[in-house]
Amino acid sequence: MEGGAHICPRYRRAIELVGKRWTGGIIRALMDGPRRFSSLLDAVPGMHDRVLSERLKELEAAEVIRRRVYAETPVRIEYELTEKGRELEKVVEEMQRWANRWMPAPAQSDGA
Amino acid sequence: MEGGAHICPRYRRAIELVGKRWTGGIIRALMDGPRRFSSLLDAVPGMHDRVLSERLKELEAAEVIRRRVYAETPVRIEYELTEKGRELEKVVEEMQRWANRWMPAPAQSDGA
Repeated sequence: MEGGAHICPRYRRAIELVGKRWTGGIIRALMDGPRRFSSLLDAVPGMHDRVLSERLKELEAAEVIRRRVYAETPVRIEYELTEKGRELEKVVEEMQRWANRWMPAPAQSDGA
Repeated sequence: MEGGAHICPRYRRAIELVGKRWTGGIIRALMDGPRRFSSLLDAVPGMHDRVLSERLKELEAAEVIRRRVYAETPVRIEYELTEKGRELEKVVEEMQRWANRWMPAPAQSDGA
């Protein structure tokens, strides 16, 4: 049996969601407020647009983010965190704090 | 460049370490105190011994756990969290709290 006191399938699925490459960066960028696709792309340097649109679909399916379409000309589309997404903030912050303290700095300092 | 304000390589490496399958369970089991291999195996149901010894080596290399050998007869070997490992507690707890609240329960309830 895979359940039990110490290995919770929910925990594993949660960390797989948040731990996916680029996903942490996307969530952190959205913590400042809703953003358009191009603004998200700028906020997470090095991420390709194809990857971003894939991650956004995954996060939308997981109900961590919401896609909002505004009927303007041209149409404005924004992504924002849901309540479920906003509550990830503490997790992401604690992880970042720990990483800053304990993980070796990358060869190129990035100031993050 | 892969650095920048929102995608920190340290964060990514940290979450890859903690997010690896079974690793969360091992760390949580060690939060109660040092354990022997067989006790860890019991604490994380479903995990095979080969996987456990692989994970223990990874966590030792990452300085998250420490392997202690006691010169008794028979030799007693215990694993314990380092300071770096103990400081992961908040991360693991916040993640678990979020997962309990927001992730769908598995088909077989496990009470975790």
